[in-house]
Amino acid sequence: MKVVIQAKKNLLESNTALANKLRQNFFKAGVTVFNLMSSPGAGKTTLLEETVEILSKQHKVGVIEGDVATDFDAERIARKGVPVIQVNTGSTCHLDASMIADSLDNYPNWQDLDMLFIENVGNLLCPATFDLGEKKRIVLLSTPEGEDKPLKYPLMFQKADMVLITKIDLAEVLNFDRVKVCSDISKLNPKAKYLEVSSQTGEGISQWLKYLVPGTT
Amino acid sequence: MKVVIQAKKNLLESNTALANKLRQNFFKAGVTVFNLMSSPGAGKTTLLEETVEILSKQHKVGVIEGDVATDFDAERIARKGVPVIQVNTGSTCHLDASMIADSLDNYPNWQDLDMLFIENVGNLLCPATFDLGEKKRIVLLSTPEGEDKPLKYPLMFQKADMVLITKIDLAEVLNFDRVKVCSDISKLNPKAKYLEVSSQTGEGISQWLKYLVPGTT
Repeated sequence: MKVVIQAKKNLLESNTALANKLRQNFFKAGVTVFNLMSSPGAGKTTLLEETVEILSKQHKVGVIEGDVATDFDAERIARKGVPVIQVNTGSTCHLDASMIADSLDNYPNWQDLDMLFIENVGNLLCPATFDLGEKKRIVLLSTPEGEDKPLKYPLMFQKADMVLITKIDLAEVLNFDRVKVCSDISKLNPKAKYLEVSSQTGEGISQWLKYLVPGTT
Repeated sequence: MKVVIQAKKNLLESNTALANKLRQNFFKAGVTVFNLMSSPGAGKTTLLEETVEILSKQHKVGVIEGDVATDFDAERIARKGVPVIQVNTGSTCHLDASMIADSLDNYPNWQDLDMLFIENVGNLLCPATFDLGEKKRIVLLSTPEGEDKPLKYPLMFQKADMVLITKIDLAEVLNFDRVKVCSDISKLNPKAKYLEVSSQTGEGISQWLKYLVPGTT
């Protein structure tokens, strides 16, 4: 058991070192990087489809899609006319910094981007541990998952810069307790920003875009 | 990197060896063990609450709850009058066989149980890799997660004995494609049983109970 823990510690240390190097490179190139994380099915790809469709009219936007298997999500993003790299992680349940570095090697002129969105593997735990060199961590929690999840998966919420409550249009029919979830998140992470959104009704989307590109009206 | 892979392989081998030993012990004691797995918020605890409330009238039923943090789920099960052990896995994103062995050490007279339900950590990937000595693997997929998830997280579905599509009462409002999800699962795993259920409306619950206790009417 001791060997495993040691191996993991070294793995995390080398991941963080590489992530810091990536962050410097992104900063130098003027690329703002967002790491989107959530459970499977919380609506990351749907929100990204909508986001890149709007932002790509005025900005150079790119996407890296992380999935255990398939390139379904990359296909969805590519249909919006935005360059996208699909990373299949196989047996690994999260993206890590080396996967992002490899992606950039295959991403022509990534330095010209204004914004790069990284959609992590659907998993509310492990992705929180692996820095990808991002500027901001965006965590999505969908109303069907239930308001108890921040306390049950605290690390993800503690390390978030922005928490999006998605599928907020379903809150009422699901008896989702908006007050409790907001209160729990603010206790776990008083600095996190918090926003309720719905890709169905458009609620909160303009605030989300303002968060991504301050000054947008 | 090589060290890490090797460590994981040894970890998996020792986990499987312990799981096989547990399985023998469960078999000798006449305890049927079910390992419930899904994404966070797919409805494992809600289904278990309902299940143990009904089955405990005629059978000796026990529960082991796996969560990264909190004992909320154990509290919910305990309210049904069923003995329950909460395992907090901390930074580990799944239960493993050693955690089950430790739980049994703290579970008075587990040998007297007819059935033991293990609720795994909410995660659609890693729990699939760790045998817990169960007889049957039950995988829940909730309609809000979307019908694309079996192909995106294939291992979990390939190793399932039973796939439950939960929150089926929401299928219509969410445009959930029941035909596609059933077709994809049957291709990934032709031997898996398949059932649509709703804890809200009761749909499929009697068939679920029949699956657990063949001969139940």
